[in-house]
Amino acid sequence: MSPYLNLDSLRQAARALPEGSSAAAAAVRARQATLTKPAGSLGRLEALAEWLARWQGRPMPRLDRVEIIVFAGNHGVTRRGVSPFPADVTAQMVANFTAGGAAINQLAAVAGATLRVLPLSLDSPTADLAVAPAMDEASFLAAVSLGHAAVAPELDLLCLGEMGIGNTTAAAAIAAALFGGDGRRWAGRGTGLDELGMARKRAVIDAALVRHAAHLDDPLSVAACLGGRELAAILGAVLAARQHGIPVLLDGFVCTAAAAPLARLSPGALDHTMIAHVSAEAGHRALAASLGMTPLLDLDMRLGEASGAAVAVPLLRAAAACHTGMATFAEAGVSAGSGG
Amino acid sequence: MSPYLNLDSLRQAARALPEGSSAAAAAVRARQATLTKPAGSLGRLEALAEWLARWQGRPMPRLDRVEIIVFAGNHGVTRRGVSPFPADVTAQMVANFTAGGAAINQLAAVAGATLRVLPLSLDSPTADLAVAPAMDEASFLAAVSLGHAAVAPELDLLCLGEMGIGNTTAAAAIAAALFGGDGRRWAGRGTGLDELGMARKRAVIDAALVRHAAHLDDPLSVAACLGGRELAAILGAVLAARQHGIPVLLDGFVCTAAAAPLARLSPGALDHTMIAHVSAEAGHRALAASLGMTPLLDLDMRLGEASGAAVAVPLLRAAAACHTGMATFAEAGVSAGSGG
Repeated sequence: MSPYLNLDSLRQAARALPEGSSAAAAAVRARQATLTKPAGSLGRLEALAEWLARWQGRPMPRLDRVEIIVFAGNHGVTRRGVSPFPADVTAQMVANFTAGGAAINQLAAVAGATLRVLPLSLDSPTADLAVAPAMDEASFLAAVSLGHAAVAPELDLLCLGEMGIGNTTAAAAIAAALFGGDGRRWAGRGTGLDELGMARKRAVIDAALVRHAAHLDDPLSVAACLGGRELAAILGAVLAARQHGIPVLLDGFVCTAAAAPLARLSPGALDHTMIAHVSAEAGHRALAASLGMTPLLDLDMRLGEASGAAVAVPLLRAAAACHTGMATFAEAGVSAGSGG
Repeated sequence: MSPYLNLDSLRQAARALPEGSSAAAAAVRARQATLTKPAGSLGRLEALAEWLARWQGRPMPRLDRVEIIVFAGNHGVTRRGVSPFPADVTAQMVANFTAGGAAINQLAAVAGATLRVLPLSLDSPTADLAVAPAMDEASFLAAVSLGHAAVAPELDLLCLGEMGIGNTTAAAAIAAALFGGDGRRWAGRGTGLDELGMARKRAVIDAALVRHAAHLDDPLSVAACLGGRELAAILGAVLAARQHGIPVLLDGFVCTAAAAPLARLSPGALDHTMIAHVSAEAGHRALAASLGMTPLLDLDMRLGEASGAAVAVPLLRAAAACHTGMATFAEAGVSAGSGG
């Protein structure tokens, strides 16, 4: 059932990803030039239509089946006071998702998306990354495989998000390990940490970078030593989406950090993903820049739970609707423009 | 039928606008603090919920009736070669709107909004603003009144947009008259002007500023001398929305310039409006800054026809849905956070 029995097979998969459809992308550009609007005037919506078409492998992109998956995990590092919320809140929020009371429930409805919540062994937090690998290889691969298997192959769009008290510490440590810098550069306030808490968080990240220094050359070891189960599941889901031809909206800082090891393993491995929203969490803008990605939205959000991804879904619907529904100049009897 | 018989009555109305509901806004802030999320973590969505509540006068904002109105007008200044498209395209695009083939038709469907298109005397273009007032007082007031009367009092949200070949020239002239600077500062490429066309457009704007210099102290004279019928109608609709308690999403550069005279007449007159999207048209970012407004989206669009406003509607739906639908910490049994 698990597609990845060891780190090598996972590494190979990440280096053998299918390309998108250049033909579908070219068809989108050709059609865009005929639609009743000044050339290029829909800006990023035109680029989004092309991106959807390329990764769906269809000249006319569809968004009939949009799914949001929120992976949840617990983190041993919470014992070091890196979050103002107790670790119990992870499970409490999973219950809130199930009951329909969280932000993501409302946002999924607005987005016209189905929502699935997948808790990963909440009763067995990962190890404290300041002193030990967060996960051993088997635990890491199990979480990656769970995330991989969670992706239904017939989706038109996948939105990924996470819930896990303490996981901005893990994300900051991953960003530091992959792109350089220390706790001061990458740590943010998370759910609302005060100055003393921030000092603890930075120190934990710096300690983890020293503790695991011998293993940080390998992006997958970074994900295992410094990450968390929900981050590993996101990594697996991003891989599966690529293999199934499903474009992906990544949520904020944690979600981007979870996917980032793939980009370090294989340039272009995240080309089928887009960062939906640049988080107010300190490190996200720099992480997006390090990955060469330009987020779609900037609304000062920092909630996680796929909220930023869900809010961006209607932009993709707008892009697809314009591309597939607009009349051409010829169909509408509208005169085309000259140079000036 | 026309509420505005002369410029004085219009000026008085703009200076006697109702305030929003501070009580509704305070109720939103109080409820936000109890919802199952870290304080402030929904960022601008929280501010949008408060803005909707304040201007709807309801602690629980609704978006059941959202309407998009696109006003269309023709401009005598097109004879000077300020657009790569012929003036006939205004009427052709109105037909395209009616037939459902334009971008705004697709975007209105995604937004869950009704769409109305109101052409204003397309067979009688305004005068060439380089040599004469675009409109006399009677024509201007008629267009303002038409826009005012077009707003149904029971709407929950109004999105405004325009169509009019040549109207970015009018908008740039208005921006220059209200906020200083010349054609070089405010003129953009509109639907895709080349360098020669840009030189003509700048020269026309500069000539208009000289020709009408004696009348540019009064913001309403600015709107009459330099604007257009569709811009005047937008001004009237913005006023009506305020009087009826309807928040407004303004579209791009032309729409913002159309409303801007109200802000010069009366500080706060646009507080019930939001700029939905910062246009790629050159002057829009500076115009928004001059008005102290922060656009919601930046997607490199420059189409007009309310497209930017329509794309932003789902953000407001997201804000309202989170505010009204989320569970409180007490309801969900979730532990609240400490300082760190």
